[in-house]
Amino acid sequence: MNTVLTVDPRDGRHRETQLRETGDPELASIVARASGATEWLSDIGRRDRAALLDEIAASLDSHRTELVGTAERETGLGHERLDFELTRAIVQFRMFGDVLRDGGYLEAAIDHAAATPLGAAPDVRRMLVPVGPVAVFGASNFPFAFSVAGGDTASALAAGCPVVLKAHPSHPLTSQASADAIAAAVRRRGGPEGVVAVVHGQAAGLALVRHPAVRAAALTGSVAAARAIQAAIDERPAPIPFYGELSSVNPIAVLPGAAAERAGQIADGLFASFTGSGGQLCTKPGLAFVPADPAGDDLVEALRARVGSAGGAVLLNERIRDAYVDAEARLERAGARVSARPDLASAAGFTVAPALLEIDITRLSAEVTDECFGPLMVVARYDAVADLDAALASLPPSLTGSVHAGTSDDRAVVRRVVDVFGASTGRIVFDGYPTGVRVSWAQHHGGPWPSTNSLHTSVGATSIRRFLRPLAWQDAPEWTLPEELRDGYREIPRRVDGRLEGARPADR
Amino acid sequence: MNTVLTVDPRDGRHRETQLRETGDPELASIVARASGATEWLSDIGRRDRAALLDEIAASLDSHRTELVGTAERETGLGHERLDFELTRAIVQFRMFGDVLRDGGYLEAAIDHAAATPLGAAPDVRRMLVPVGPVAVFGASNFPFAFSVAGGDTASALAAGCPVVLKAHPSHPLTSQASADAIAAAVRRRGGPEGVVAVVHGQAAGLALVRHPAVRAAALTGSVAAARAIQAAIDERPAPIPFYGELSSVNPIAVLPGAAAERAGQIADGLFASFTGSGGQLCTKPGLAFVPADPAGDDLVEALRARVGSAGGAVLLNERIRDAYVDAEARLERAGARVSARPDLASAAGFTVAPALLEIDITRLSAEVTDECFGPLMVVARYDAVADLDAALASLPPSLTGSVHAGTSDDRAVVRRVVDVFGASTGRIVFDGYPTGVRVSWAQHHGGPWPSTNSLHTSVGATSIRRFLRPLAWQDAPEWTLPEELRDGYREIPRRVDGRLEGARPADR
Repeated sequence: MNTVLTVDPRDGRHRETQLRETGDPELASIVARASGATEWLSDIGRRDRAALLDEIAASLDSHRTELVGTAERETGLGHERLDFELTRAIVQFRMFGDVLRDGGYLEAAIDHAAATPLGAAPDVRRMLVPVGPVAVFGASNFPFAFSVAGGDTASALAAGCPVVLKAHPSHPLTSQASADAIAAAVRRRGGPEGVVAVVHGQAAGLALVRHPAVRAAALTGSVAAARAIQAAIDERPAPIPFYGELSSVNPIAVLPGAAAERAGQIADGLFASFTGSGGQLCTKPGLAFVPADPAGDDLVEALRARVGSAGGAVLLNERIRDAYVDAEARLERAGARVSARPDLASAAGFTVAPALLEIDITRLSAEVTDECFGPLMVVARYDAVADLDAALASLPPSLTGSVHAGTSDDRAVVRRVVDVFGASTGRIVFDGYPTGVRVSWAQHHGGPWPSTNSLHTSVGATSIRRFLRPLAWQDAPEWTLPEELRDGYREIPRRVDGRLEGARPADR
Repeated sequence: MNTVLTVDPRDGRHRETQLRETGDPELASIVARASGATEWLSDIGRRDRAALLDEIAASLDSHRTELVGTAERETGLGHERLDFELTRAIVQFRMFGDVLRDGGYLEAAIDHAAATPLGAAPDVRRMLVPVGPVAVFGASNFPFAFSVAGGDTASALAAGCPVVLKAHPSHPLTSQASADAIAAAVRRRGGPEGVVAVVHGQAAGLALVRHPAVRAAALTGSVAAARAIQAAIDERPAPIPFYGELSSVNPIAVLPGAAAERAGQIADGLFASFTGSGGQLCTKPGLAFVPADPAGDDLVEALRARVGSAGGAVLLNERIRDAYVDAEARLERAGARVSARPDLASAAGFTVAPALLEIDITRLSAEVTDECFGPLMVVARYDAVADLDAALASLPPSLTGSVHAGTSDDRAVVRRVVDVFGASTGRIVFDGYPTGVRVSWAQHHGGPWPSTNSLHTSVGATSIRRFLRPLAWQDAPEWTLPEELRDGYREIPRRVDGRLEGARPADR
């Protein structure tokens, strides 16, 4: 099989690794081991699975220097950002430990036998159970938090599903090192091989989702990647759920009052948000609406100054760099003009210049509202809020929509913007920026197509639902039931005869 | 457009109706009205939506004589069954009223702004919101409970989604009368046209799911119908979720102890379960495993006696009747032999004879384990429980799996059967029969492919999740939030800063 290469995007140099693309026989063994690990992962129960996630978090932390150093060489994202991202990945594993200990995610419900308007009804009990082995496709832009050690892995393991990761070719060594750190934690908890494994190569990724033992797939990536994976899934006799977190332009609406009250502050925030991590975030604001008034002029002028004096950004790989250059050209053909772009003294490796573009608000075609990965934002100026309303209504759905309002802005205008974003995005951000997605219970990171292809989040506690299916027991003898569905159990919230009952944890 | 025909399956006679197949311009108007109704249905809020569902339940009840009479002529299912089914449909609307008043279905969560290991985090609040207009395909076999007035409609309306029904051609007049009864209730509650509408004709059904304004689809029907609908959905630029409740053989494992203790009782139960409603239930037991011992002989003998003296069953339509005849022939070709089948004096309309078949347990091919709609059950005898284990493990997934155990049966054997059914079905039934699905909070009616294509139920309170998507608000001013997400609100269960808080209903 082909050797896997690693590339340093800071200089563009390719190096051979010890890794090989995963061939079919090896893939079959890996999936067989994952299937074999399903029972162990389920049987250890919620508390031991929580302990496993904590152990994984600790293991990742203990390999911090190696992991961050490797990711630095493979992604060019910089030490500070990667160190923070690894902490985020660790926090995610710990959060799912909390989710497991809480137990509400099981959606446990008991309907005792009863006389009903439809006659004598049997005892029915329901809770969610793991779907089985899951395929996860690592993202280019988050070597930790959306890759091998990412939220998809953490939520799938929490659910009780073994995970086979398809490593992103932009960071194979980081992927392998992450998998090794996780595997070490699994061994320390007495787990079998196969709880987590990594495959390399595009063909292996597609073979993975075609494998009958794989029961769900998750991707953070492009619409094109999602289509390829979906096409492979469609070859299966039995379909499986596929969760894609895909493409998003993340519009920002700055209302006149906000611009008048804090033009400079908003310019600072926007600049940081669209250039951070080289603009390679799924929540990067790609399109900002700014009033065509003096305060809006000040805001755009401040943005121009910041962009014009900015340094270059190292993009993750050659393909992303080329796509960025193409996107800029596409935008110019679509009527946007470059408003600010620094002249870089050097552009080693996959370094590009950040860019601010401007476009007439009446020219917002699909070419302009398509996601552009990289440090680029388009500004559209509006004269009347009616023009803003019309423009917002014409945008494709996004993960997020942000509105900046000042004290002088009409609440009816804010309401209209919120309503549009409520219908066409998954998260409405007020007076802030969409990047920096909080990892928490209430988070939703998802939105209507093309931002995602599902009704689920890929960040936050509720993302665990993607890897669970309901199972019901009718008139079951108590000894056959999972402990969470037995009558006396009170350690998790349950719905009993239609009434939600809180947990009453055992004294300990 | 083509006239819609109605057929009385008791005599096979076709009659013209006043209804026409729905053409494209009319479909466009219907979907436009549904889209227009979305805002009203969402804006009235949970309490008024609950009142609407109660009003619909009352309206259906007030049209009982007409509805049941029409359905009798169109389905041949008999007055008692249809009267019961209408009550079930009414109960479903009332249950979703309770679901709305409870409010837990919103999965409301609030994470207040906080200092976290990842720095200062914003306030994030999340709850589920309606996806938009939904297409529902009525089932042949439940003119009320899985059709226009069915659970998909009730759960979608509860979620806040207008519904466009594709009427099943087996009961167009019942469908229309149901829609009229629902529309009258909507009008009484001040609702607009378009909250519920019906379309007729296969082409209209496919055009419906291709329509960009339709945001989800649900079907209770065959795998072939699901494939046709999925193919139409795949033509859309933006995919939508599609929930199909499809095909299921619903195995029954009778363990030796159960047969020894209650052979006659089990024979009675099985006979009632596989012949009730002409065997046209998605949970009909199609395959029973019976021990090859004297108690098993008694059980099969008792079944034979009941089947041999049974009357004919009127099937729903010509296609189903033909498929039943074909399936019997297919089973015989696959090695099954007819064990009992009454000689019918007459077989008017689409009447068929119920049939009991037997097959060697080593000959369970896909031809045998495919769902066969109609009053037919296959019995496979086993010598050793190891043979039973192997046979159960070879079956395709089902909605349900039932196990009958006696006091003398080994718990290890029961555990193995339960584990197999836990992996391959959605509901494990103990010492009972899968038909007669309880409508309740804990119910799960779904299972791995081919029994369904999703991780959701189509019966019970949690089926509402199919038509909801999460939405998050970040740092939102209180006045922009739905009331359920405001700080002081306590009428529903919510997860606040990770802790589940029960509802504390206002004094009233």
